[in-house]
Order: sequence, then structure tokens, then C-alpha cells
Amino acid sequence: MAAYQEMTREQLLAEKRRMEALYREWQGKGLRLNMARGKPSNAQLDLSMPMMDVLDSKASLYAEDGTDCRNYGVLDGIPEAKKLMADFVGVKPENVIVFGGSSLNIMYDMVSRAYTHGVMGSTPWSKLERVKFLCPVPGYDRHFSITEFFGVEMIPIPIDENGPDLDLVEQYVREDESVKGMWCVPMYGNPTGYVYGEEVVKRIAALRPAAKDFRVYWDNAYGIHHLYFEEAAHIPEILSECEKAGNPDLVYEFCSTSKITFPGSGISALAASAANIASIKKMMTWQIIGHDKLNQLRHVRFFGDINGVMEHMKKHAQILAPKFEAVEEILERELGGLEIASWTNPKGGYFISFDAMEGCAKAIVAKCKEAGMVLTEAGATYPYGIDPHDSNIRIAPSFPTQEEIRMATELFAVCVKLVSLEKLLENA
Amino acid sequence: MAAYQEMTREQLLAEKRRMEALYREWQGKGLRLNMARGKPSNAQLDLSMPMMDVLDSKASLYAEDGTDCRNYGVLDGIPEAKKLMADFVGVKPENVIVFGGSSLNIMYDMVSRAYTHGVMGSTPWSKLERVKFLCPVPGYDRHFSITEFFGVEMIPIPIDENGPDLDLVEQYVREDESVKGMWCVPMYGNPTGYVYGEEVVKRIAALRPAAKDFRVYWDNAYGIHHLYFEEAAHIPEILSECEKAGNPDLVYEFCSTSKITFPGSGISALAASAANIASIKKMMTWQIIGHDKLNQLRHVRFFGDINGVMEHMKKHAQILAPKFEAVEEILERELGGLEIASWTNPKGGYFISFDAMEGCAKAIVAKCKEAGMVLTEAGATYPYGIDPHDSNIRIAPSFPTQEEIRMATELFAVCVKLVSLEKLLENA
Repeated sequence: MAAYQEMTREQLLAEKRRMEALYREWQGKGLRLNMARGKPSNAQLDLSMPMMDVLDSKASLYAEDGTDCRNYGVLDGIPEAKKLMADFVGVKPENVIVFGGSSLNIMYDMVSRAYTHGVMGSTPWSKLERVKFLCPVPGYDRHFSITEFFGVEMIPIPIDENGPDLDLVEQYVREDESVKGMWCVPMYGNPTGYVYGEEVVKRIAALRPAAKDFRVYWDNAYGIHHLYFEEAAHIPEILSECEKAGNPDLVYEFCSTSKITFPGSGISALAASAANIASIKKMMTWQIIGHDKLNQLRHVRFFGDINGVMEHMKKHAQILAPKFEAVEEILERELGGLEIASWTNPKGGYFISFDAMEGCAKAIVAKCKEAGMVLTEAGATYPYGIDPHDSNIRIAPSFPTQEEIRMATELFAVCVKLVSLEKLLENA
Repeated sequence: MAAYQEMTREQLLAEKRRMEALYREWQGKGLRLNMARGKPSNAQLDLSMPMMDVLDSKASLYAEDGTDCRNYGVLDGIPEAKKLMADFVGVKPENVIVFGGSSLNIMYDMVSRAYTHGVMGSTPWSKLERVKFLCPVPGYDRHFSITEFFGVEMIPIPIDENGPDLDLVEQYVREDESVKGMWCVPMYGNPTGYVYGEEVVKRIAALRPAAKDFRVYWDNAYGIHHLYFEEAAHIPEILSECEKAGNPDLVYEFCSTSKITFPGSGISALAASAANIASIKKMMTWQIIGHDKLNQLRHVRFFGDINGVMEHMKKHAQILAPKFEAVEEILERELGGLEIASWTNPKGGYFISFDAMEGCAKAIVAKCKEAGMVLTEAGATYPYGIDPHDSNIRIAPSFPTQEEIRMATELFAVCVKLVSLEKLLENA
């Protein structure tokens, strides 16, 4: 098939008629497909079922330091859970606070506390005229929602396969004291799947922000979520890079077991410098006595240590990799060479980022919906839900079955072609 | 023994020498006692151990509406958990949101959100010159800590065995638009053990606040925590009273299973009007996808229904009641008739409130500490930690063993007498 861009008007019309017929066929199937949510599949959840057996009424419910995990106390997590989460991200246990099931909730609380009480003695953001965040795009909608909720002005920063445009980032943080943060998903980013390059990580660690309360919100959600362990990506550990660069307090790092064990019933953690940790713990004392220590214990007993986690992640990869491969194979077969779209081929994480021709994303998502297939809303990957090019679509292949994914991607490709043809004919 | 107040100086001196000798004996024992924390004892925690067996790898982990409790979703709790928590406080499930392990965290978040975003469209408290809360005293230190953290001005309201002084409360909320809230522990209050009278509850429900964003923060922490079920106290259900009084949105009610199953690993809930619930859920969407549904399911499967909870609470009562009785018996035997102290005799909850002679509480707590016994810091039961009479001490008899409680109370009585004698001799 020739590139659409090079077709004559007649060829485009003929191709459009062919796609319309195919689309009607798909519509007739009464499908209900969903590639919107980055949820583990049932087969993945089943991997963690043995965790339901590790604590029972005969088990010792004492932590290794003698803490009775059934009673009040322990603000920052039991020692063995701190160790486990520290090993996730390659830091020391004393740099970790273990929370409840949701790392999103930690991020919300960090922004909320900065808004109400400031960061380590700085002016609370509620008292400032303007607060800005740098938002690498396309990115994670729930990050952008938090900052939007707090009235933070979001500045999109272009991202490529090595990470955000650091020239731009350095300029903003150096020159504008109202820039207080940057959202980052350094490993297998949502939705691109990109992994920050070593140089990018080091430049981030060496940022010289005008604002003392500037922090990098480093959401390491997919730090060990490789699809291919034999060629697993690796990035420098950010806390020690910051320390080396004379910037120990620059970063808040977040992680969780949401896509390792059970989303919502996992454990999550924050990693940061000693000074940050001390300040955060002090503020937490007004909020909570301690998070669920039994669930911390359950996770530690199930995994043993970080090696247990890595073995577990390999099983996830065996389920997930074929799903990504199916999407990529069909996209390549159906759209390759047409010059109407590009997409990422991630080696980890939960998403594929798809770029249609400018002005086509919303129409593609709508077309898919009319045929019974739900995708993440177009624009969701940009601050305020506004993709200036209306071209980015997030594809989440994890939850559906292999068969559903193949159908969904075939249908998706038809919709992409149909909308692209309409667009080209408008301009032809 | 005659009342200390009526003794001559010589008699006081003789009694003081006797007490000093006794105190030295106690000091010599090298005790380590703690009556500071309202923690369940090990025997109480053991009551919930069978809950560790109700969910295992062979159990269905689906909620009654088909939700897979292992995966993302469900912001406000699975239906059966909403029902269970609704039955705790006598409301409908649609008026309930189920959260994680900590009701304190819910209260913090409610105050924090009012500060950052206001209450149902009102001006955020961060944008106001002054925000005030009414604080019935003596009360719960962690309530006062939350409002202090957000710069709220706290106004102490005297409390008696029927509840807070409503004449004063009515006047404040009617006349002062900066009064935005009132902390209440209506059942078996912390630390008094008082239960609000029916008339008091109805007057609270009928408050006519000048501030539209005024809410009663109704912490029903001990709603079913009776010591004697055959004579269990009962108060009118506050949401329906508010509705009847034409005030449906006046109250946020909080409860949890912290002192029913495992503190920190329980479930908690907020109950409120439909309008409040809708507004809160909307704000929660930026914060979290959903709380731990597996733990919700675990609690529901363990208890079955509210009757199961009540049977469970009777077992708690059998462990707790003798501890309260031991404290009260020793206090009466040692201090009765001396006219130097008074204390409450609660029929539920976790605390006894003790009032020493004016200016003696700090000294008594210090004396106890020197002999190896930790009590809640004097003043903690008042806003800003300042008891204007320096007389109130919170006694928590739940955690120590029966034997430890007897020793602790004997020692406490000696310290009370000694400090009182010193005080009387100062003035004699």
C-alpha cells in the first residue's frame, strides 16, 4: 500500500469506501472492548493469589523489630517493608516512608501540603500569586489533574525517546521562581514507554532552580515493569545523582506495588533525602498514626526480598509482552508505510503512545466508541486535557485478553485510516 | 480519712511524710507502666485473629456486585462495606463513603480540603482572615492538632455529663461567621466518657450557623464501644435529626473499626448528606482511585453483618470493663472523700477523665513519670495543650494488664496525694 499522502483524490475516495465498508462490518459485531485503563489483567492478578495465604491466624504478626503489626503505631512503615520498597528504587531504607495502597494519594498529599504549609519552611503555595509546574507531554492525566485541582499553571515540555527537553526545563527552572515542580515518569513513561537517558537523569539531578521549594516529582511507577528482562532498561538512581550534584533535596520519588500485586490493596512508598523525609514525617503526624502494617507484612512475607519481586515481575512480563507485541504487529501491518501515524514500541510499562495526523485524535477515539471500543479520551495525555495537535492517543493493552486486543487493534486501525482519509480529502 | 482541705498544717505534713515514704517505695520498684495510649490490649486484638483466615487464595475476591476487589476502582467502597459501616451509625449506605484504615486521616482531609477548596462552593479557608472551631473540653488532642496545624483559632467550650454547653455553642455559631466547625465525640467522649443527651443532640442538629460552610465534625469513634451492653447508652442518629431540623448538610460523621478489629489495619467511613457525599466524592477523584477493597471484603466476611459486630464488641467489653472497674475502685478507695480530685466513671469508650486540684496536673504527671509510669501529657486534652486550670489528666486503662493497671492506679493515687499535699501546704 502506498502512503496516503501520495494518493490521488480518486485513490483516497476508493480507499475510504473500502474502510467505510470494513467499519460497518465492525459496527455490526456489537463489540464491547476497552483499551482505556492501565489495569492488570485477571491472569496477572492470579499471580499474586498466594499472597492471600501468607498471613493467617496462626502466623506471627510481629515485625522484625518486635512491633505488633495489629496495633497502632509506626508512622513510616515497618523496617522490612521500608527495606523492600527501598530496594525497588535502589535507595537506603532510611530514605523511605511506606504508605497505604495508593502512590497517587502520596503525590496528592505532597502537592496539597506544599499548598497549605509550604516545602521545608517556604511560603505555602496558597499564599503565592502563581505556581507553575513543568509537564513533559504526552504524560499521565492524573498527575495533571492534581496540579490543575490546586490551580497550578502547567507548562507542557516536549518529550522524546530520551526524556523531556532539558534545555527548556533548565531555562524555566533557572529563570522563573514560580516554577515549583516537574512531573516525571522516568522509566517506561505513561503513555510513551520512553526511558530517560542517563544524560537526562544527570541533568535533572543537576538542575539549579530559582525556587528553593522546587521539587522533581519522580513517579517511578514502572521502575521494574520490564517486558523483556534480558534487555531490561536501567537508569541512574536519582537520589544519589542529586546528592552527587549537590542537590540532595531536589527529588520526591514515588513507587508502589499497584501493578505488582493488587491495585488499591498494595503498598506504596516515597523516597527522598533525609531532610525531606524528616520534614514530611513531621507533617504526617497531624494526619495519621500509621498505615496498614499488616498489609506491609503480607507483602514482605510474600516476596521475601527484592529478588522475589523480580521473579514475580518476570511472570507479569510473560503475560504482558505478547499483548504489546500483538498491538505493535497489527499497527505495523495495517498502518506501516501509510505515513499517517506513528507509535512507540515500549519495552516496559503499561502503555503505547500513538500519534495520528494532526487534528485526528478526537475523531478516531469517537469512531472507535461508536463501534463499541473505549479508548482513553483524546487530549487526556496533555495538561487541561488539551492536546494542541489533537494527535495523541494512549493505548492500554494490559487488561483485555489476547483475542480482544487483536480485535481492538484491528478496529482501531480501521478507524485511524477512515479518519485520516477524511482529513486528507478535506485538504485535497 | 478526713478531707485534706480540713486538715491542720501538722496533719498535712504528717500525711505528706507518709506519702513520700510510699512514693520512694514505688520508685524503688523500677516499674515501666503506661496508661497514656488508647490502644486495645493483646487480648482484645486476639479476638480478631480469625479475621486473618476469611480471605485466602481459594476465597472468592469478588464483591456482591461483581467487582473484582483485587483490581483498581470503586471510589466510595464496595456495597457490602458501605452497608456495614452505615449500620454502625444507623444511616443509609448511600450516605456513606468507606475509606482506608484511619478515620483521623478522613478528618484531616476534610479540614485540608475546606482549607484548599472550601466546602460546597464556599470560599477556601486559606483565603479567609480568620477561621474558628468550637472545641468542647476536655477533648481529643488529635482533633485539636489538626485544626491547629491549619491555623484555625480554637475556642474551648465547657462540657458536662450531657455534652457541650449549647447556649454558648448556639451563640458562637449564630453570631460569628468565622466559626466554621465544632469537634464532637458524642458517645463515650475522649477523655470524659460522657454521652451527649438527647436534648443536646437535637439542639446541635438545629443549629443555625451564620457560616454556610459550618460543619459539625461528629467523631463517632466509640458509638458501639459499650462496657455494659445490658445498659448501653443510645443517642439519636444525627443525620436524620439534622434532616428533620431542616439542616441536612450540617454534619460530617466519622467512624472506624480501629478499636473493633486492628488499629491501622481496619476500615473507616464518613457519613453525610447526599449533597455533602457528592461534593466529597468529586474532590476525592483527584486524590485516589479507590481504597483497599480486599480489606473491606475481609471485614464484611468476618462480621457478616452488624449483629456480628455487636457480638464481637461484647467480647471486647468483657476484657475492658474489669480494667475500668479496677481504676475506679482504687481511685475511690484511695482518693474518695479527700476532696482533692474528681473523675468520671464511663460506661463505654477508652478513657477516664481525672480532675486534680487546680495547678496540680502537670506535677502529678511528672511525679508518675519519675516513678516509671507514663501518662498522657497534662494539657493534651485542651486546645494548644493549655489546660487553664492545669487540672485535667486522661487515664487510658485499655492496654496494660489487669495487674499493671492496679499497680499503676495505686501509684497514681500516691502521686495525686503527694502533689495535692504540697499544693495545700503552699497555701496553708
